[in-house]
Amino acid sequence: MNQMTPIDTALEARMANAIRALAMDAVEAAKSGHPGAPMGMADVAAVLFNRFMRVDPTTHDWPDRDRFVMSAGHGSMLVYAINHMLGYDDMGMDQIRAFRQMGSRTAGHPEYGHAKGIETTTGPLGQGITTAVGMALAERMANARWGDDLVDHHTYVIAGDGCLMEGISHEAIDLAGHLRLGRLIVLWDDNGITIDGNTDLSTSTDQKARFAAAGWHVQQVDGHDREAVAAAIEAARADDRPSMIACKTVIGFGAPNKQGSHSVHGAPLGAEEIAAAREALDWPYEPFFLPDDVLNGWAAIASHGAEARANWTARLDSSKNRNEFMAAQGQPNEAALRSAIGEYCHKLVAERPKVATRKSSEMALEIVNATLPNTIGGSADLTGSNNTLTKGMQPIRSGDYSGRYIHYGIREHAMAAVMNGIALHGGFIPYGGTFLAFADYSRPAIRLGALMGVRVIHVMTHDSIGLGEDGPTHQPVEHLAALRAIPNLQVFRPADAVETAEAWEIALLSESTPSVLCLSRQNLPAVRTEDEGENRSLRGAYVLRSTPAPRDVTLIATGSEVEIALAAADLLREQRIDAAVISAPCFELFAAQDRAYRQGVLCDAPRIGIEAAIRQGWDLMLRPEDGFIGMTGFGASAPSPELYRHFDITPEAVAALARQLIEGKK
Amino acid sequence: MNQMTPIDTALEARMANAIRALAMDAVEAAKSGHPGAPMGMADVAAVLFNRFMRVDPTTHDWPDRDRFVMSAGHGSMLVYAINHMLGYDDMGMDQIRAFRQMGSRTAGHPEYGHAKGIETTTGPLGQGITTAVGMALAERMANARWGDDLVDHHTYVIAGDGCLMEGISHEAIDLAGHLRLGRLIVLWDDNGITIDGNTDLSTSTDQKARFAAAGWHVQQVDGHDREAVAAAIEAARADDRPSMIACKTVIGFGAPNKQGSHSVHGAPLGAEEIAAAREALDWPYEPFFLPDDVLNGWAAIASHGAEARANWTARLDSSKNRNEFMAAQGQPNEAALRSAIGEYCHKLVAERPKVATRKSSEMALEIVNATLPNTIGGSADLTGSNNTLTKGMQPIRSGDYSGRYIHYGIREHAMAAVMNGIALHGGFIPYGGTFLAFADYSRPAIRLGALMGVRVIHVMTHDSIGLGEDGPTHQPVEHLAALRAIPNLQVFRPADAVETAEAWEIALLSESTPSVLCLSRQNLPAVRTEDEGENRSLRGAYVLRSTPAPRDVTLIATGSEVEIALAAADLLREQRIDAAVISAPCFELFAAQDRAYRQGVLCDAPRIGIEAAIRQGWDLMLRPEDGFIGMTGFGASAPSPELYRHFDITPEAVAALARQLIEGKK
Repeated sequence: MNQMTPIDTALEARMANAIRALAMDAVEAAKSGHPGAPMGMADVAAVLFNRFMRVDPTTHDWPDRDRFVMSAGHGSMLVYAINHMLGYDDMGMDQIRAFRQMGSRTAGHPEYGHAKGIETTTGPLGQGITTAVGMALAERMANARWGDDLVDHHTYVIAGDGCLMEGISHEAIDLAGHLRLGRLIVLWDDNGITIDGNTDLSTSTDQKARFAAAGWHVQQVDGHDREAVAAAIEAARADDRPSMIACKTVIGFGAPNKQGSHSVHGAPLGAEEIAAAREALDWPYEPFFLPDDVLNGWAAIASHGAEARANWTARLDSSKNRNEFMAAQGQPNEAALRSAIGEYCHKLVAERPKVATRKSSEMALEIVNATLPNTIGGSADLTGSNNTLTKGMQPIRSGDYSGRYIHYGIREHAMAAVMNGIALHGGFIPYGGTFLAFADYSRPAIRLGALMGVRVIHVMTHDSIGLGEDGPTHQPVEHLAALRAIPNLQVFRPADAVETAEAWEIALLSESTPSVLCLSRQNLPAVRTEDEGENRSLRGAYVLRSTPAPRDVTLIATGSEVEIALAAADLLREQRIDAAVISAPCFELFAAQDRAYRQGVLCDAPRIGIEAAIRQGWDLMLRPEDGFIGMTGFGASAPSPELYRHFDITPEAVAALARQLIEGKK
Repeated sequence: MNQMTPIDTALEARMANAIRALAMDAVEAAKSGHPGAPMGMADVAAVLFNRFMRVDPTTHDWPDRDRFVMSAGHGSMLVYAINHMLGYDDMGMDQIRAFRQMGSRTAGHPEYGHAKGIETTTGPLGQGITTAVGMALAERMANARWGDDLVDHHTYVIAGDGCLMEGISHEAIDLAGHLRLGRLIVLWDDNGITIDGNTDLSTSTDQKARFAAAGWHVQQVDGHDREAVAAAIEAARADDRPSMIACKTVIGFGAPNKQGSHSVHGAPLGAEEIAAAREALDWPYEPFFLPDDVLNGWAAIASHGAEARANWTARLDSSKNRNEFMAAQGQPNEAALRSAIGEYCHKLVAERPKVATRKSSEMALEIVNATLPNTIGGSADLTGSNNTLTKGMQPIRSGDYSGRYIHYGIREHAMAAVMNGIALHGGFIPYGGTFLAFADYSRPAIRLGALMGVRVIHVMTHDSIGLGEDGPTHQPVEHLAALRAIPNLQVFRPADAVETAEAWEIALLSESTPSVLCLSRQNLPAVRTEDEGENRSLRGAYVLRSTPAPRDVTLIATGSEVEIALAAADLLREQRIDAAVISAPCFELFAAQDRAYRQGVLCDAPRIGIEAAIRQGWDLMLRPEDGFIGMTGFGASAPSPELYRHFDITPEAVAALARQLIEGKK
């Protein structure tokens, strides 16, 4: 426990009631929100913070702080109430009063980056608990590298019934149990209520048995018996397995006429019920008022945290690992990375390897992983297909977290959320592989990473019909468009080994934007054959093959179709047509260029977009009168070259369309 | 058991080896594919078909057939081998020889609709087992309606480690256990191997305990001990809980040097190993040759099935439920639906209700559910928000499947896959609700439904920043674009009660296309105020407010933004600018119209698209010089009207942009 002094349990009860009061008052003022979970879990949260949590509001990003994740994100007022009372300087009572209002930090769901002490954005259910698995894993990885002196903290999660019903929770608990993440403690708000009514409307699962089956330490307590909760958390900390504590609670505890019912889940209590709750809780204060004893109680937690942080700082200063530790907390070594990638690209333009971009990615990763010590690789059971494992990388295993490679299992969704958690924890840059078609499985977590702005790199191979025989279930057709649609996400589709290395460099240096690398299964020729001494992909799209001005037609392609564009340009040359070829590895970066650059690349001649995918999203590049060679529906099962012919994505088709457009313009 | 005659176990062993031989020969010929699972599960499959399955290859769509789902879809050759030997007339040896080749029915993964006897498309892991839950539920629902005489079959699933690691499997088994779907029997190919290596690289879950925790009947057998397998299937059939049988198998069983290793999972065995396997299996035949005794053994299964089907037909012919049953198997009563919706719309144009389109949807559903007896509603725990429950609908419960409403729980992904299964089973039209932002959770199953072409209706409410305070995690911004990107999916965003009713009519009558209805949380005025006597939404977009020709500007909007377009047109009218307003409830249907219709709607004047979402996908409507009023990034947490002002999606902004475009053109 944090405190050597005896617990003032009467005060602790009032500290819990303060959470309840702020939650019901803020929801009432906002006329919207969820009082049920904060009121139900107030006792558990008060015990957790009062007796265990080590956070320092004056240094909110102290690396060795405990992490608290409100996976049931709709109960955001629990977080805001606690952070207000702990004294975070950006969470004044003005913020509590402005709950869910424009411009406030107290959004409907906790938003990472909006306020200090919010470790991750939650709301879409199941994301928090899975992101927390990533945090708990990062803690163990950091501990394995830098020792107990510098890394020794816990990750606590409050999860609701919804979190545990969502499929991603299975992936999370299976992985956490397998990796024996003993510092992960999940407090399940077992209130028996969901939005539609009692949980027995839709589930009969014995959650305790389910967690035990996944290798977890499991307990059950009355969530309003604070001593029992404290004892359970103690026992959970003592066990070396991840722990789940089923906290039997009454949703909306304290609201005498509504508690225990789904009516208290997601709506204001109303003035009358709030008055009754004040009575029931013996809380005779005005709305938003906090008595001094309660404030002092919460302030004591903060000062214990500040003390722990000061002790840690002293240990850091005397640690032989200080420099390495601090370097890992900061930005990757940009100069070293640029120099290593630059040198590698210099070699590539000479050697011109004809390899799949998934292989190019592995080659680039050999450089990256040798240059940046804190990248963490992995794959959702497609290591040999995604080419994500580089030489000497050891797997991370239960009890041995010194490795750099995570076997995520067949769990694309958890992989993405765990990577979010690793990035949020700090100290590491995670990347992980799957097939591009399965981006759909990861999508909710990819989106959340984009919303939070974390540096996570999704390696997605087998990026088109070019994967061949596996057929339409495995062939991405709409996935490029669907990913490009997500704000603050960089989608790369490199054409050869040089562009792949460039994409890696950009992704690794994008501190607050996740990236997706879409890579081919099939071999592709080198298209970048000269060393321009710069990362051309940074512009998003650029003239790969120029022509005398004015050009007759502009061929714009990405990834594996750049080869087709070049071949089409050759065909057209034989017919005395000057076709420029634009390689467009990243639409988002191109969209960010100024108009003059974009116009200089695209010019006025007829344009043809070429991508073995649907046209949606190409309006960035194409006008209605321009052409597109790609897909209009799902793929098929056959060898890749036959599929390209079948769907008419060939140099001949491009050349024919070019002639048609040029004729039409005359 | 099917057969009264004693089992010829020696023959059954050869029938299993025939699956192995065809699988290894076909994969070898294709130079790609997965021999491991078909060879490992051949014994289990032979027992299942030989002793239990009731299918009739001469009447592949016999409604009371048993369903077989190869959830581990990469093991597709198991399905093709069996269906060939059972004598399905579209699965000749030419198809087996053309495995994974262009135009063959034997795609890399089993594709629904490509060949008879493929009950669902599988490949993306976890989908098969969850779709099967839908089939097993549909069986019970049909049984509750039409009795044991007409509906009395089982759903069998072969699932691999991947299926059980995927999150969706948790949702599936939790729901199946809760609903006590005793006729669902999952045969787990427990071979201890995944692509990356042994399963202990990534999982430690005790699957048997996990299924037991979800209320399943659980057994474990040696998957190569056919008598034990048969006994386990018998016991599973006798138990009234869903059953999981852990079949301990050797992956690639029969390939003496490679079996039991991940090298046999997804690559051809090679000529040498195939020769060794022929030796080991005592299978001295040429590739693709099947001896008569084996063919006779499989043919006997087919004739037992044909007999069962004939008996069933006799029962059907004498059943009092015959007409009702047959009607449920066919198309919904189009005339009745059109008439009821038409009459309802006639009332609506007079009453002009100002309600949210989610409420409009409930109003339309009252008509729909009264008219079509076999719609099955549901929600992923957002019943009161999605407005999916109409008067008198009773919930489906464990042991009582006579209801029409499914509490799917907080399981968006399973909901979508289960709906696919219900639709594939036949007899029902499923619809289910969640928030549009959580379309991301359902996406893999939505895509699979589109690929298969099933009639499933996704009700997705809270379709924009208009949902207000819940903030960016819950506010769809890119989801409309991402859904429109999926081929063969109809995405509706109706503007008022009339358009909502029209969307329902179209969705219900779209036999081979799933639909998504994107509906507002906030109230919207009636915009369709005249009875045109036709379903105008059928054209996808239409002139809602016309102007004297030539118009000055065209405002194109969807859903809640049609109101804004109309208000903008009013503002412009005051400035003597003629703005036509186009309502565009369904882009896919508009894209399918001929050029003349589209041009007639859009005209040449400057255009402005208005949608509280990103611009991607609007190239269907807009030219580069046109304008767009919408979102460029994530939303925020605040009351809805403030958000519209904050993001400048207002009549004033539209009018200002219109003036700018008109000026620019002059």
